Amino acid sequence: MKLKVYADRMSQPSRAVIIFCKVNGIDFEEVRIDITKRQQLSTEFKEINPMGKVPAIVDGRVKLFESHAILIYLACVFPGVADHWYPADLFKRAKIESVLDWHHSNLRQGAVTYVVNTVLPPALGLPLNPQAAAEGEKVLFSSLSKVESFWLKGSGLFLLGGNQPSIADLSLVSELMQLEVLDENDHNRILAPYKKVKQWIKDTRYATNPHFDEAHKMLFKAKARLQKQPSVGTNSETQSSLKATLPSKM
Amino acid sequence: MKLKVYADRMSQPSRAVIIFCKVNGIDFEEVRIDITKRQQLSTEFKEINPMGKVPAIVDGRVKLFESHAILIYLACVFPGVADHWYPADLFKRAKIESVLDWHHSNLRQGAVTYVVNTVLPPALGLPLNPQAAAEGEKVLFSSLSKVESFWLKGSGLFLLGGNQPSIADLSLVSELMQLEVLDENDHNRILAPYKKVKQWIKDTRYATNPHFDEAHKMLFKAKARLQKQPSVGTNSETQSSLKATLPSKM
Repeated sequence: MKLKVYADRMSQPSRAVIIFCKVNGIDFEEVRIDITKRQQLSTEFKEINPMGKVPAIVDGRVKLFESHAILIYLACVFPGVADHWYPADLFKRAKIESVLDWHHSNLRQGAVTYVVNTVLPPALGLPLNPQAAAEGEKVLFSSLSKVESFWLKGSGLFLLGGNQPSIADLSLVSELMQLEVLDENDHNRILAPYKKVKQWIKDTRYATNPHFDEAHKMLFKAKARLQKQPSVGTNSETQSSLKATLPSKM
Repeated sequence: MKLKVYADRMSQPSRAVIIFCKVNGIDFEEVRIDITKRQQLSTEFKEINPMGKVPAIVDGRVKLFESHAILIYLACVFPGVADHWYPADLFKRAKIESVLDWHHSNLRQGAVTYVVNTVLPPALGLPLNPQAAAEGEKVLFSSLSKVESFWLKGSGLFLLGGNQPSIADLSLVSELMQLEVLDENDHNRILAPYKKVKQWIKDTRYATNPHFDEAHKMLFKAKARLQKQPSVGTNSETQSSLKATLPSKM
């Protein structure tokens, strides 16, 4: 039975899993769980993931959720996945796990909190929460500094000094791509101080294309809709299509 | 060269790593990083962990931080660690990683946010933040419900239906033990609805004693000091000994 990937491409961990499968030639069926329609909270989907979040996979009798656990599982059980994604070497592997664990309460928390409290409230017709946005921004900047000065300090193109990407590059870059939905000036302001980070995003994209661009098409469409918004909270189509997007992500 | 574990036993992930080493007979040197003295931010310690958090380890040439990555590494490279802690079976392993990843933004986030915004501000002479405490409580209750109804739904004593504990049991139970510093009534109010959770904490303690109790001695001493506090913000000894405790944890 073919691997099933339950995902919404508006969700950054969903995109990481989809890109990983495509880059590694893993045969899978993508099952769209439309988080704008709250399908992740349906009884059917909760049979797959009781936490009501995407992505999740079903592989034979195995049901699994949490994108990092999924990426590790896929790297270990599918033949033909190149070693650099999740090396057999226990020392390299431990370092990758350290990045992935760090990500949860740092880059992810900062990026999600910032996006949820800046670009989304106007699109959803909700009031802004400047304090929450400021807290998110603080965590985001602190995390970007750590990526720039520590995780990318090696001589290679990727995290931990690697010359080829690992699942950590895929997870963290997918997260940063979510910042694309921000206003162009704000996006530039946030990333401008981090030259290595900007280059690393390009390198990860390059290493995983055409799948990277293909998986991000939906995000760029959402971005275009957001940029077109004439004023705060007036575009009901955008509001409807974005509603509940972020709280539903993993 | 002996494994070095840089830890503060007031930090829940530090305790998880220490208990794991002791239960599994791993020979190690415990290096106290006193977070009440902000030693985790010292130049010397930042050579070990540039993120300035405990725990961290040095094993020969390997430096590693993030407690889940450390637990996985130790389980894989040290001989004599029983399989149930981190099974060789890739399906069981994936499920354990799913619990560990879920933990970051759920049980951990809820428990830390709640403790930081309830019992600690009075001890540190800081004003309470009821809104932040309420948000932490919400995440904490939701996470406890998921542990009770989903992660502990199997017939075994431990997470995922296991009959013996894994590193996920150790990490999550160490987190919940931090609630011991709360006022007794509040502690009971929070855990009362979760009978399986309460039993699971006991079972994990039982499975890892005497090391579990020994590793928690310092926490119980802090609890006793907090309970003795006559009024808000007057006990400078407690204030000093607790200052900067929680923001410093991993």
